[in-house]
Amino acid sequence: MGGPEVERLIGLLAKLPGLGPRSARRAALRLLREPEARLLPLAQALAEAARSVRTCGVCGNLDSVDPCSICADPHRDRATICVVEGVGDLWALERAGVYRGLYHVLGGTLSALAGTGPEDLAVAPLLTRLEAGGVAEVILALGATVDGATTAHWLAERLQPLGVAVTRLGQGVPIGGALEVLDDGTLAVALRSRRA
Amino acid sequence: MGGPEVERLIGLLAKLPGLGPRSARRAALRLLREPEARLLPLAQALAEAARSVRTCGVCGNLDSVDPCSICADPHRDRATICVVEGVGDLWALERAGVYRGLYHVLGGTLSALAGTGPEDLAVAPLLTRLEAGGVAEVILALGATVDGATTAHWLAERLQPLGVAVTRLGQGVPIGGALEVLDDGTLAVALRSRRA
Repeated sequence: MGGPEVERLIGLLAKLPGLGPRSARRAALRLLREPEARLLPLAQALAEAARSVRTCGVCGNLDSVDPCSICADPHRDRATICVVEGVGDLWALERAGVYRGLYHVLGGTLSALAGTGPEDLAVAPLLTRLEAGGVAEVILALGATVDGATTAHWLAERLQPLGVAVTRLGQGVPIGGALEVLDDGTLAVALRSRRA
Repeated sequence: MGGPEVERLIGLLAKLPGLGPRSARRAALRLLREPEARLLPLAQALAEAARSVRTCGVCGNLDSVDPCSICADPHRDRATICVVEGVGDLWALERAGVYRGLYHVLGGTLSALAGTGPEDLAVAPLLTRLEAGGVAEVILALGATVDGATTAHWLAERLQPLGVAVTRLGQGVPIGGALEVLDDGTLAVALRSRRA
C-alpha cells in the first residue's frame, strides 16, 4: 500500500524506539496526510540535525557546536565533572536543572556479557581531562544496574591515584515512589541511608 | 540540550502518534547517534515520500501513482466498492488480503460534535462513481462507533435509489477475543448473530 516509498518510510519509522510496525504505519499516515505541515518539516529538521549536530570533542555531548555549549559555558563549575553512561543521561540531568558542573560521557558501561571493555569507553579522554588539573570532584552518575555499579567501582579505583574526590549519586526511594512497588534492593538501600 | 536543531527535531517527533516528549527525545538521540545509518535515511525517505505520494483522484487512497495501484489493477473486482473512513482502514483491509474489490475513502464520518457534515466527506465523488454504472455492491466498512453507524445509516439511505446492494461488515466476537473482556454491546451483537 502506498508504494515502495511509503513502505520504506514505515520500515525506518518502525525502528525508532517507542514505535512498532503498527504505530509506524499510523505515524506514516499522519505525516502523509499533511505533507506540507508535517512531513516536509520533519524531513528538513532531520536533515538540519544531521548537518549541524556533532559530538563534543571534550565531553562527548551532542550539540551543534564543538566544544558543546556546556563545555564552553564560562558560568559552569569547571572543578566538577559528572560521568554519565550516555548523552540521554546528560540531557536528563540538564533538564532537572540541578547540576552546574561539566560532564563526561562514557559511551556505555563495562559489560562482560556484551564484551564491552575499558577500551570501548571514553576512559582515556577522562583521565586526560583529570591529568590536566583543576578538577576537584568526579561524580559517577552511572545507572544503578549491575554493569553500572561494576563500572563505577572500576572507575573509582582508576581515579583514586589522581587525587580527586570521587562520589556517586545517592540511592533510595525515588520522589513520588510508593514503597509497595519498590524492589527489595532499593528498600534496603533506603533504610541503610536513612536520615534524621 | 543539543542546540535548537535538536529541540526542533524532538518537537516534531513528539507530534507523531505513539510518541510523547520522552520517547521523542529517546528517538532523536537514537537517530543522532547514528546519523549515517539512521538519521539521513529517514530524512531521505520522508523527502521521497513527500515528493512521490499523492491522493488517488478516484478512491482517495494514498499512492505514488494516480489513479492508485488498486484502482488501476485490472484484476480487481470493479463491481464492488468498499467504503472506508480513512486510508488507514483501507491499508488494514489490504494487509488482511481478503478483499479483491475497489475502495472509496470517505475521509471521516458524519459527526455532530466535530461539525462534520456530508459536504466534508467524499460523498459526491462516491455518487458519481456509482452513477457511472457497473457497481453491484457497496460495502460500508465504517467503524462500529456511534458516528460510524450514523454515517453508514445515512449513506445507506442515500445509496438506496441507485439500485446497488448496500452491505455492512459482520459484527461479533473478534478472532482471538476473550469473552470476559468484551463489552456488552459486542456480546449482544454476537449472540444475536449466532450461527449453527
